[in-house]
Amino acid sequence: MRQLEGALPDFHAIIPAGGVGSRLWPLSRAEAPKFLHDLTGTGRTLLRETWERILPLTGIDRIMVVTGRAHRAAVERQLPELTPANMVLESEPKESSAAIGLAAAILHRRQPDVIVGSFAADHVITDADRFRRTVAEAVAVARTGLITTIGITPLEPSIGFGYIHCGAPLEIEGAPHAELVDRFVEKPDLETATQYVRSGDYLWNAGMFISRADRLLDELARTQPELHEGLVEIAAAWDTEQRDDVVDAIWPMLSKIAIDYSVAEPAAEEGRLAVVRGDFPWDDVGDFSSLAKLLSGGRPGDLAILGEGARVLADSSSGVVVSQSQRLISLIGVTDIVVVDTPDALLVTTREHAQRVKAVVDAIKSAGRNDLL
Amino acid sequence: MRQLEGALPDFHAIIPAGGVGSRLWPLSRAEAPKFLHDLTGTGRTLLRETWERILPLTGIDRIMVVTGRAHRAAVERQLPELTPANMVLESEPKESSAAIGLAAAILHRRQPDVIVGSFAADHVITDADRFRRTVAEAVAVARTGLITTIGITPLEPSIGFGYIHCGAPLEIEGAPHAELVDRFVEKPDLETATQYVRSGDYLWNAGMFISRADRLLDELARTQPELHEGLVEIAAAWDTEQRDDVVDAIWPMLSKIAIDYSVAEPAAEEGRLAVVRGDFPWDDVGDFSSLAKLLSGGRPGDLAILGEGARVLADSSSGVVVSQSQRLISLIGVTDIVVVDTPDALLVTTREHAQRVKAVVDAIKSAGRNDLL
Repeated sequence: MRQLEGALPDFHAIIPAGGVGSRLWPLSRAEAPKFLHDLTGTGRTLLRETWERILPLTGIDRIMVVTGRAHRAAVERQLPELTPANMVLESEPKESSAAIGLAAAILHRRQPDVIVGSFAADHVITDADRFRRTVAEAVAVARTGLITTIGITPLEPSIGFGYIHCGAPLEIEGAPHAELVDRFVEKPDLETATQYVRSGDYLWNAGMFISRADRLLDELARTQPELHEGLVEIAAAWDTEQRDDVVDAIWPMLSKIAIDYSVAEPAAEEGRLAVVRGDFPWDDVGDFSSLAKLLSGGRPGDLAILGEGARVLADSSSGVVVSQSQRLISLIGVTDIVVVDTPDALLVTTREHAQRVKAVVDAIKSAGRNDLL
Repeated sequence: MRQLEGALPDFHAIIPAGGVGSRLWPLSRAEAPKFLHDLTGTGRTLLRETWERILPLTGIDRIMVVTGRAHRAAVERQLPELTPANMVLESEPKESSAAIGLAAAILHRRQPDVIVGSFAADHVITDADRFRRTVAEAVAVARTGLITTIGITPLEPSIGFGYIHCGAPLEIEGAPHAELVDRFVEKPDLETATQYVRSGDYLWNAGMFISRADRLLDELARTQPELHEGLVEIAAAWDTEQRDDVVDAIWPMLSKIAIDYSVAEPAAEEGRLAVVRGDFPWDDVGDFSSLAKLLSGGRPGDLAILGEGARVLADSSSGVVVSQSQRLISLIGVTDIVVVDTPDALLVTTREHAQRVKAVVDAIKSAGRNDLL
């Protein structure tokens, strides 16, 4: 692949920074969601890493962040360079169609031929160069009018991700790894996932979408006309004094739907969705087992430790320890363990049961202990 | 058995309150050793429970406590009724021969025909009536001049306790369950322990000794003449103004040896040691696995929780949680787990590995982190 230099013309990134990451409780909280944490031990939050990964493709002025009002100060601390006009604050969470759609609609009003790319604030990608080369291909595909996603070459038969079934290869200048998308499939069982990986025709769905803003809004208008209308109305008022009034009137009425269902899957059915194969390491770090794998480089038997100044004394133990208190943590003879030590809550489980953390969060919610969420 | 009423004439109890209980770290600490904890969920410390269990046999004036100088204030808080003359403070720990021997020597000076009984401050006995009836038998045996121990009818082939092999039955008025001791045996392996329990001839060594003070001191004079001489010299000065000077001069020179080796085993070899069978529930709560069993009444699959105001959210988990912080503790899918949550240290292990906690304590000691011990 050629070396990428400089920003991509007409390209604008959108970073939706939402979602608590319930399965990472008690590390991830409503007040300090996943994207505000350092999950890789670099000292930088996932949001900051996402920003720095994208920056060479866009420059400072062409990254928009969509987040909840509650996180405004934290996001400003993480991204002091962020242009104020590119901070979109949601008065309440409305899922990805509204968040990305509003950003696209605002950017489209500012520049009708803009190409937008949305990249979650809380994923981990360790090879930024490869990532950027793949995005550059996706932008080249998006210029042709196709809505474009990035699919990750699967490293193992994961049952934690959705898959993309690739269709016919595309012949697009500057995008040698582009294909049409045949269809999306939900998280499979292990046997199916194994077949997928063996076939070579399936990629992990990493939830990245690159498109001309007008094409993305067209798709939304077709599948979610009311949502589309509301977003266009807010976008029209966004850079005016009416912004707050219009947002307050319309945003609460908008429907909550993931962009996968409102845009990606319908576009795939119509043959308007392309995928560029990405072979960079990617993880959405959905639970503590993923975190353990990520931090230990996949070596079983390792004990991964995350947390500034963590003090861990371990004997014959493996898994992951997340330390957010200054306490000494001693482990003896516990394998594949998950210990998450925070000032007001402690979690002890195993990698095998890491998916069930969400049930604890639900139980705490039911008990009305929102201070712990 | 007859109902016991009132105090036993000439009987004086000694409670050695020493020993950190390393295998109960980080609950048990140098500053707050095992005997200062409530391990049964009654709201009373083990020391207080020991006091209350013995009190009907002696009255307030006839219980002596031997403890370290560092624990003086804590012991006074636990036992405000304790007669000041019956508080013996060690300037440094010297093992049970010196601790119990000094108490016996002081009491013998005050009353030459006194019968003393020593009872650890950190064992758990749940049937106090049966315990007292057994002690009354042991006192009856001790009056005849035999050194007497109490052996517990084993409930299972424990490999955590030493055993007493019983010899010939004794015919002593008021002591129908008395036998001579044939010998002591160290902690056996499981197969041997199983044979012991099946035979009916072996009892658990609970480390309780009842004896005329003069006979106990005679035994010590025979096996540890220097230690005996030092103790007698301190005892002579104890109730005088010379106490501190004499203690400071002699106590540091005394040898450290368990009373099992200085008195019990040598007496058994000479046919001067008796045992009274006790069939009350007894446990020395040596580690967290014992604690789990004790708190759950032995029901496997139970999750035992210890700690005032403990907040535990458990899903498919068993074992024991000790909570000394006010944090929410969540467990998911961890079986036979041990979680000990204190303000400055957290332990996570399993019941199977509970014995290895001492190694952690040794590692902390080696690291010079005495603040955590």
